[in-house]
Amino acid sequence: MYKQDNRLAVRGTYIHAPKLGEIEVVESALIVVGAAGAVEQILLPDDPSFEANCRAAKDAGHYVQLRENQYLLPGLVDLHVHAPQWPQAGRALRVPLEQWLQQYTFPLEARYSDIEFAQCVYQSLVNTLLANGTTTALYFASIHLESSLLLAQICLESGQRALVGKVSMDNPEQCPDYYREQSTSAGLATTEAFICGVKSLPNNQLSMVRPVVTPRFIPSCTDEMLLGLGQIANQHDCHVQTHCSESEWEHQYVLDRFGKSDTECLADMGLANGKSVFAHANFVSDEDMTIIHEAAVGIAHCPMSNIYFANSVFPTRKALNTGINVGLGTDIAGGPSPSLLFNCQMATSMSRILESGVDPTLRDSVRGVADSRLTFQEAFWMATAGGGAALGENIGVFKPGYCFDAIVVDFNVEHSNIANWPELENADEQLEKIIYNANRQNIVRVWVNGQTVVDRASSR
Amino acid sequence: MYKQDNRLAVRGTYIHAPKLGEIEVVESALIVVGAAGAVEQILLPDDPSFEANCRAAKDAGHYVQLRENQYLLPGLVDLHVHAPQWPQAGRALRVPLEQWLQQYTFPLEARYSDIEFAQCVYQSLVNTLLANGTTTALYFASIHLESSLLLAQICLESGQRALVGKVSMDNPEQCPDYYREQSTSAGLATTEAFICGVKSLPNNQLSMVRPVVTPRFIPSCTDEMLLGLGQIANQHDCHVQTHCSESEWEHQYVLDRFGKSDTECLADMGLANGKSVFAHANFVSDEDMTIIHEAAVGIAHCPMSNIYFANSVFPTRKALNTGINVGLGTDIAGGPSPSLLFNCQMATSMSRILESGVDPTLRDSVRGVADSRLTFQEAFWMATAGGGAALGENIGVFKPGYCFDAIVVDFNVEHSNIANWPELENADEQLEKIIYNANRQNIVRVWVNGQTVVDRASSR
Repeated sequence: MYKQDNRLAVRGTYIHAPKLGEIEVVESALIVVGAAGAVEQILLPDDPSFEANCRAAKDAGHYVQLRENQYLLPGLVDLHVHAPQWPQAGRALRVPLEQWLQQYTFPLEARYSDIEFAQCVYQSLVNTLLANGTTTALYFASIHLESSLLLAQICLESGQRALVGKVSMDNPEQCPDYYREQSTSAGLATTEAFICGVKSLPNNQLSMVRPVVTPRFIPSCTDEMLLGLGQIANQHDCHVQTHCSESEWEHQYVLDRFGKSDTECLADMGLANGKSVFAHANFVSDEDMTIIHEAAVGIAHCPMSNIYFANSVFPTRKALNTGINVGLGTDIAGGPSPSLLFNCQMATSMSRILESGVDPTLRDSVRGVADSRLTFQEAFWMATAGGGAALGENIGVFKPGYCFDAIVVDFNVEHSNIANWPELENADEQLEKIIYNANRQNIVRVWVNGQTVVDRASSR
Repeated sequence: MYKQDNRLAVRGTYIHAPKLGEIEVVESALIVVGAAGAVEQILLPDDPSFEANCRAAKDAGHYVQLRENQYLLPGLVDLHVHAPQWPQAGRALRVPLEQWLQQYTFPLEARYSDIEFAQCVYQSLVNTLLANGTTTALYFASIHLESSLLLAQICLESGQRALVGKVSMDNPEQCPDYYREQSTSAGLATTEAFICGVKSLPNNQLSMVRPVVTPRFIPSCTDEMLLGLGQIANQHDCHVQTHCSESEWEHQYVLDRFGKSDTECLADMGLANGKSVFAHANFVSDEDMTIIHEAAVGIAHCPMSNIYFANSVFPTRKALNTGINVGLGTDIAGGPSPSLLFNCQMATSMSRILESGVDPTLRDSVRGVADSRLTFQEAFWMATAGGGAALGENIGVFKPGYCFDAIVVDFNVEHSNIANWPELENADEQLEKIIYNANRQNIVRVWVNGQTVVDRASSR
């Protein structure tokens, strides 16, 4: 997918969330993208250079004009995807986390020593995520060096911005014999080899794909592994991802083993910094939230997965109020859906049910947690700008200097489920309708870094 | 759409839920449909007459063979749809029920005095529901006779099995001047005119569309209206639908006005019987549940709508254990999505969150309601056979004598979000994947009463 010149000019109405809770709708704008794929300028029709820029882009053959009923949105940022679990997306949701791992997930992940199987699954997943508008994904791969590198390569070739982690897990008490690093030192060495391998992939000059240090979660790792990974992350200035206080079982396991919380442990091990993303964090304490905020760690909130495997709702409102950068994750396959727009809807819905509670035999004043609700505008911020902020990348907003990662949502495609009555609503409400009813077929075009990676517009 | 001969034979693998909690998968079956649209027989390949029946159907030109990766499922039964609210599906979900009605919903519904507007909205909705696999829908229309009859006619012409109610609401204390029956007696007379009008629609010989007595909910109606509607339902042997104990506000309103619950009131008014469907019922007591069960009233559970407007989760497990016929409703536009498969997923998800609770600061032993979970198999029963049982119609199961209302789900369509690894899973798990990730584009064919009403297979 790599090309040297990503220049582009897109004219149409865009909607984004430059600040938490604020939606900005800009009609008939012209977004001018430079050769390196970043936004150079955003012009309005009354700008004296507007028409000249349109003409220049037309003459150069890189002008795109959106149609009526089409909106330009920032590309979606998925902060938590287990790539090898894609074949089981949407099944086996009935068992608790620890059983789900041992009975379903570890046996499946162990198959990725088979590079052909990996090729088939990973290409299917990356295509699916791109088609659903996910322009950036933070992936857990498996423990295998070769197939994890293959995932990075597939992302690069498919044009998806990606952060990919080879999973580290070496604790014989928690990991089965058939799916565990050969030794702690071998595991650490493989992680370093993975980091170097991703950085030296052909055509990765722009670092479109980055390596991520990825201890699965504390129970899977020995102390030595965690400390070693912290050092590697520091030496290579790498992103870090792991699960943090996801379920009551897992949270209690760490308290029992270390006498402190996941967050405190991860901070001690050098795994909590501005390039870290913790998935879930449902059971963190107020003190943990302060640590997370002060260390500038991002949180991947996975609302669907929480229903099945965290058995509670992450107090997102509280985390946002603390100032933490919270983004959204599909958590395939703990979460069943590859759609981040769907998870955006569910983040809103789950925050409402956290606020109102669930048990109708209790009075409303006691059954929920007051002041927990998120607006759809805030959920959309998390799915775009919030995810970008959690990763420390210039993505998720239309702004000069930010990468042009974007999707076109079309209300008028043949199989749309969006009830389209534009004369009855404003653009904010149209965004609400996108979040609630847009399907994959409504996303007709996707750009990453100025490059077209999905284009259905021409096939209609 | 009406034709005299609906004969058909469909060969392929079907999945249905003949009993609550049990999924039956029958491979390579031949379902033979008679001229009136009902299943005549279901043959397996080892039946001596299997091949002869295939040949006869081929010769007659009404043989359909499913492809690999296609499953035949019963058509979906949506027990609660507000047709006039379709334009606001997916917006205005932030306000409480009473405000949502007065500020958004009543002004929108009042527009259906405009028959052209009604034509446009109703045709769009019926097409959308059919495309999502909803073969039977129980509709609230508006208070207007003409446009409510138009909805019935559109269903008939589009080939959807439908039960349609002109809404009754005459209480000046709760209904705005601009959207209320002219008087109680005028409202009752209009309801009778509506019933006769639906029954005498041209081409409605098979009663594919039926009239439904539809008091909006108790707050909207005077005592005289409720009593009068009970009498009308009895005289005309009509179905009845209304909202029952949906929100705490509404439930308390009825307690204050009558000193008893919605369920007790509705029973007193002659509105609770084997042809009645109560929507929501979140706040019913154990005694109410017993009344509902003994009167053979069905319940329309609307999991998405409950999040926003009931602020609690309907205790579905308890209702099913009581023996009540519970089906599912989209509750457009209290629920944002026209997809019943999505609501099937959400019924499962919401039952899990009712069981586990939401607040992670409480211990898991106290934050939820034990034994509340539904399996996806049970949710699928509700979406099909349960909905049929609630209506007292022979639909929702493949069985001789039952109407052939069916959908074909195809895993291999171009824009599918289903991760398809059939070699890794059984048919039950494939159904789970359908419930979690099938979009409208996966539904490639829909039959109602043996007639094709959606056919995308040929356009691929």
